[in-house]
Amino acid sequence: MPRMNHSKGVGVTKIHDITIPIGPSTPLWPDDPDISLEPASRIANGDVSNVTLLTMGTHSGTHIDPPAHFFDGTATVDRIELSLLCGPAFVAEINAVERIGREHLDAAKIPPGVRRLLLKTSNSSKELMSRPDFDANFVSLSPSGARWIVDHGVQVVGIDYLSVEAHSDLNHDTHRVLLGNRLSVLEGLDLRSIDTGHYLLFALPLKIARGDGAPVRAVLVENI
Amino acid sequence: MPRMNHSKGVGVTKIHDITIPIGPSTPLWPDDPDISLEPASRIANGDVSNVTLLTMGTHSGTHIDPPAHFFDGTATVDRIELSLLCGPAFVAEINAVERIGREHLDAAKIPPGVRRLLLKTSNSSKELMSRPDFDANFVSLSPSGARWIVDHGVQVVGIDYLSVEAHSDLNHDTHRVLLGNRLSVLEGLDLRSIDTGHYLLFALPLKIARGDGAPVRAVLVENI
Repeated sequence: MPRMNHSKGVGVTKIHDITIPIGPSTPLWPDDPDISLEPASRIANGDVSNVTLLTMGTHSGTHIDPPAHFFDGTATVDRIELSLLCGPAFVAEINAVERIGREHLDAAKIPPGVRRLLLKTSNSSKELMSRPDFDANFVSLSPSGARWIVDHGVQVVGIDYLSVEAHSDLNHDTHRVLLGNRLSVLEGLDLRSIDTGHYLLFALPLKIARGDGAPVRAVLVENI
Repeated sequence: MPRMNHSKGVGVTKIHDITIPIGPSTPLWPDDPDISLEPASRIANGDVSNVTLLTMGTHSGTHIDPPAHFFDGTATVDRIELSLLCGPAFVAEINAVERIGREHLDAAKIPPGVRRLLLKTSNSSKELMSRPDFDANFVSLSPSGARWIVDHGVQVVGIDYLSVEAHSDLNHDTHRVLLGNRLSVLEGLDLRSIDTGHYLLFALPLKIARGDGAPVRAVLVENI
């Protein structure tokens, strides 16, 4: 496991930002609300300071799905335990696959006991999260892959495009398996510069009261 | 310094959430935009999932001021080094003071070398951040206090109400001293349950492209 070093001048810790910027170029899931950043006050207009009005959906950009995204009456985003969102994580790279299933996860050399699993796919090499237009041909997790993840005790799973589930899955079985088993799902991660391996994850969502989701700032901490 | 323990089953780490919830009860600085959470899709209305449209100002709730809040052309929120926002922090409790000046910081037993300093004041015991109505009589940092902080090498300073500076300071000298010296300022922290001492701070702002500020999810990590 990696260790953060808190003593001054001893060891080096690297913090990887795995969050995409929020702005007019952020790709959006079809029918999600637009992101808007409108000036509320501007020094250039004679105001004392700069303030902006942000408007966005709770599932835009790098974000988290709590169970309440799909199941009314279950945990909302402000109720996800921070001890789930902060701690050791494993990044698994799975390439040359369109839908990640049980067999791909079996072959991915994921160590036993991983509670936080981030899936790096060819979405990253294609830089899909850096393209403003939605691309329906992204790599996703199949329902059998979701079941593998639940069965292996993973509690937080992440992926490098806007949804963990294929755009064509109209039953939403992948989401239902994951969120129905109280997992939380990180979507829209920027894993382009991240190698397979162990890190410390801090994935901190906006604390939206009773939110069905929230944008997240997520980092991976590594000793180098 | 506290240490996070990453080995399974050894030691206990506690994560303190120092963020206030975002919702209709969040107190707002006068003239800041309202916070709104409007349904975009609802399972209860026959939609597949729940999605919400969030509208808020970039300086509402628990948030961060980068230099660009007061100085055009300086660092925006997406440019603040994460190594500044993540790392050892000291919480100093300063009570029975209306404006924290140089003399109060001298007396506060702040260890030398602190880069991240959070000021817990009577704003916390009064629970001002839990009251929906703005209260102009909050404890703030005076310009002399701001100068002390710059002179002592602090790079991130935080406080437990909506501004680090008194509502009556129309020159905004406290902000100008801090942001003009490239510090970032955390405002609206919930420090009610936090004791004086050393922690690991993770204060992660929304990654708003060229943002003049952003809401933050902030946690303090402690070994117990």
